Amino acid sequence: MTRRDLIELGIAAVLVLVAAALHYAHAAPVVTFLGAALAIAMLARLVGGATEQLGGRLGSSVAGVVQSGLGNLPELFIALFALHDGLILVVQAALVGSVIANSVLVLGLAFLVGGVRNGTQRFSSMRARMIATLTTLAATILAFPTLAHAFHSPAAAHEKSLSLICAGVLIVLFVLTLPGFLAGGDDHAGAAPRWSLATTVAVLGAAGVGAAFVSDWFVTALKPATEALGMSEAFAGLVVVAIAGNAVENVVGVQLAARNRPDFAISVVINSALQVALLLTPVIVFASLFFATTLTLVFPTLLAISLLVAAAITSLVVYDGESTWEEGAILVGLYVVIAASFWWGA
Amino acid sequence: MTRRDLIELGIAAVLVLVAAALHYAHAAPVVTFLGAALAIAMLARLVGGATEQLGGRLGSSVAGVVQSGLGNLPELFIALFALHDGLILVVQAALVGSVIANSVLVLGLAFLVGGVRNGTQRFSSMRARMIATLTTLAATILAFPTLAHAFHSPAAAHEKSLSLICAGVLIVLFVLTLPGFLAGGDDHAGAAPRWSLATTVAVLGAAGVGAAFVSDWFVTALKPATEALGMSEAFAGLVVVAIAGNAVENVVGVQLAARNRPDFAISVVINSALQVALLLTPVIVFASLFFATTLTLVFPTLLAISLLVAAAITSLVVYDGESTWEEGAILVGLYVVIAASFWWGA
Amino acid sequence: MTRRDLIELGIAAVLVLVAAALHYAHAAPVVTFLGAALAIAMLARLVGGATEQLGGRLGSSVAGVVQSGLGNLPELFIALFALHDGLILVVQAALVGSVIANSVLVLGLAFLVGGVRNGTQRFSSMRARMIATLTTLAATILAFPTLAHAFHSPAAAHEKSLSLICAGVLIVLFVLTLPGFLAGGDDHAGAAPRWSLATTVAVLGAAGVGAAFVSDWFVTALKPATEALGMSEAFAGLVVVAIAGNAVENVVGVQLAARNRPDFAISVVINSALQVALLLTPVIVFASLFFATTLTLVFPTLLAISLLVAAAITSLVVYDGESTWEEGAILVGLYVVIAASFWWGA
Repeated sequence: MTRRDLIELGIAAVLVLVAAALHYAHAAPVVTFLGAALAIAMLARLVGGATEQLGGRLGSSVAGVVQSGLGNLPELFIALFALHDGLILVVQAALVGSVIANSVLVLGLAFLVGGVRNGTQRFSSMRARMIATLTTLAATILAFPTLAHAFHSPAAAHEKSLSLICAGVLIVLFVLTLPGFLAGGDDHAGAAPRWSLATTVAVLGAAGVGAAFVSDWFVTALKPATEALGMSEAFAGLVVVAIAGNAVENVVGVQLAARNRPDFAISVVINSALQVALLLTPVIVFASLFFATTLTLVFPTLLAISLLVAAAITSLVVYDGESTWEEGAILVGLYVVIAASFWWGA
Repeated sequence: MTRRDLIELGIAAVLVLVAAALHYAHAAPVVTFLGAALAIAMLARLVGGATEQLGGRLGSSVAGVVQSGLGNLPELFIALFALHDGLILVVQAALVGSVIANSVLVLGLAFLVGGVRNGTQRFSSMRARMIATLTTLAATILAFPTLAHAFHSPAAAHEKSLSLICAGVLIVLFVLTLPGFLAGGDDHAGAAPRWSLATTVAVLGAAGVGAAFVSDWFVTALKPATEALGMSEAFAGLVVVAIAGNAVENVVGVQLAARNRPDFAISVVINSALQVALLLTPVIVFASLFFATTLTLVFPTLLAISLLVAAAITSLVVYDGESTWEEGAILVGLYVVIAASFWWGA
Repeated sequence: MTRRDLIELGIAAVLVLVAAALHYAHAAPVVTFLGAALAIAMLARLVGGATEQLGGRLGSSVAGVVQSGLGNLPELFIALFALHDGLILVVQAALVGSVIANSVLVLGLAFLVGGVRNGTQRFSSMRARMIATLTTLAATILAFPTLAHAFHSPAAAHEKSLSLICAGVLIVLFVLTLPGFLAGGDDHAGAAPRWSLATTVAVLGAAGVGAAFVSDWFVTALKPATEALGMSEAFAGLVVVAIAGNAVENVVGVQLAARNRPDFAISVVINSALQVALLLTPVIVFASLFFATTLTLVFPTLLAISLLVAAAITSLVVYDGESTWEEGAILVGLYVVIAASFWWGA
């Protein structure tokens, strides 16, 4: 372990302890909520780093599988605790919000920072375009039960069945397409592992346990905190949970664009959106069958429309093969508008 | 005629006779329905083969016109008989379903089979992109009356007039663009005619008469059969009628992709979707003026939305100029979701 | 001033006088309406010419700013007078109609004329694609308050706030992106000024004052004229006002395509749509705060859907990098269908 690794571990530990103190001391919910959000972002970073270490050790294929599974761990915990508390809308908004945050906000920031630093950036890898296409297709599948509901199709009366069919199709597609993505995963590898396997597993285990606890505190503080701040549950899920849960991909994506590696930046950012659509969402739909309240894919209509719009726009900006900071600025502007549309509660 | 031609003719004759026997013996509707569907698919293949023979004889331009007209013959007959029986929803779903089946399911299967066999396929012809663009534009025109209706625009009170305007615009566009497509039709020609003109005309006549009869039996069995199977009328039209009526293009498109001719495969598949939108649908709208119930372009909203989504996604996957089997798999997944959304009846 | 300049000035003066005579003589509203529309189109042309003269004098950067501001002057006047008369729907339809007319009708005519004259046209400039992308993004932002309203999101109860947020985001984006566009504005420059600065300013002043008066007469005649013609207020705004107000860009765009300069034609046409979305619309939204009736961005739903569809289709036809007259014809067909959908009043 390098000095920097130790510092990061230390920061994570401190943030978790602070979050714990806030939770058990019954601090103002807003403060606990923010503390827990920070701790989750740091734990997500730790998990990300540890799975990368695993990557150098296990070969990029196996690492890819592990990364897919573990990279979404904090979001998974939050979703499960929120489901347990019946916060269906928060979970739905957080899932859709992860896709939108990645494919509009983070992509926009990457274009903005990359464009200001490096001028017009050109990217042309088949991988970036392919991931954008797959994300758009997966988002369309995710949105279908809502469309059936919103437009009063007879299928609206069978929303649970239709949601399970969509979730099933998505998970089958994830399993089928996983090998293809792994084959293209060379980008990620290269760095020799700095940690021993024991250290890596210990960090992963500790971060996982920490994430579970902090997620619980986060969800407990969420409802009173959002009420105190005047934001809706949908906004809390769409913006706060989504950004906290994807903090790592967000930072990495923007950094890569700043370093003038636009193809890689786009792959990382959109791949994160794709995994939420193909893996995390269906897993949570199926998991919810064991909870009191089932999570269906019938979202508030505007949420599904926003998802479709975000996915289509992602393909649009990726397909033209060039990014400018103007494009980035207007993507960020679009994100502000989408987020603002969900600020108000019912 | 080759031995293979004779075998095909024989199979078609047997299938028509079987369908006739089932119909007149009052067999279980499900069985009659399936028998008639098979016979229609085989007759569509015969008509396709015969018009190709005509092509070698008349020059590709005239053949193109004939093919446009005759290639859609079985679908036309089914639509007219279904209209006569007042099965408006089946006809609407079958028309939209033809576009969706071609541009999502068949394209997906072509990508899947082509990708598994040949790896990533690249296609770049202007023709493929142009047909995808035109299909998206035509689908948008087709969807407009439904959008006006669904969003309570004042035009909703004039749905018949608006539908006729849209149908008129589409048919004018078909007539205008036909020459351009014929000029590009060299792809199709090449094969010297194996049949005499008399044989060709006789086969076409017999297949046409057969298609008319079998369509009648098919439509008669459709309602009780779908009820027995628990599927909605919309599903019967969208999936069963659309796939049976486009069987030829479906098989040919997938075969071409398997033989690593992706440009040609895409042209054939999407061109079939385009003809349904530009020619068959407006013809049936105008024809319906002579029936008791007029067919308008006000579809169930989800049907029009599915059409728009399918058309947009077709352009998306064609524009990136590359196809992989993963893209194909997720297109097939999307088709499963669209079809499932229409399984349930009102 | 050349002889031709003087003739144009004379025609403009005559048209303004004719419009005045019609207005003050209480001629039939339809006649006054058409007379004023003609005068507005001619004044728009004058303002366009004068700002170009300014361009040769001030350098393309400053000229770009002036052009953005003054080029939309006639539309601004009409919108303000119409707002004053409470014709909210006309103003909304005229703004959306400017975007749709440019990106569907005029682009279609440019493709049609360019294709018939020059065959398939290829265009590849980053500028054309970038403007199309930005227009699609801006149109999406514009459409969001309507989407929130149409799909009964809680934000629907805060439509004024949400509209102001969207308008604010758009105006910030305009200010941010203006320099980038100016840098690319070399296309416009080149012609040495033929008018003295005094003449230019005098023409601009006279044309501006004329535009203000004629806009008033136009708006006064609008309601009775549209009633007499049987067209809805939405149609009057979407088609008549939008085409009269954008007459210059329309003619210039089609001329450039005819002269086989498709890249430049597309930039001019879509740039005009982009300026309406990024500058004119938010300015009018903020200006309306000083009027009795506030203009929100909650349009009739079909209007916002048409805007989204038009923007998406613009990107589609620009991204494929090629235009044919068939593509142009079908774009014009789509415009006919969109316009027809708004013919009928509530």
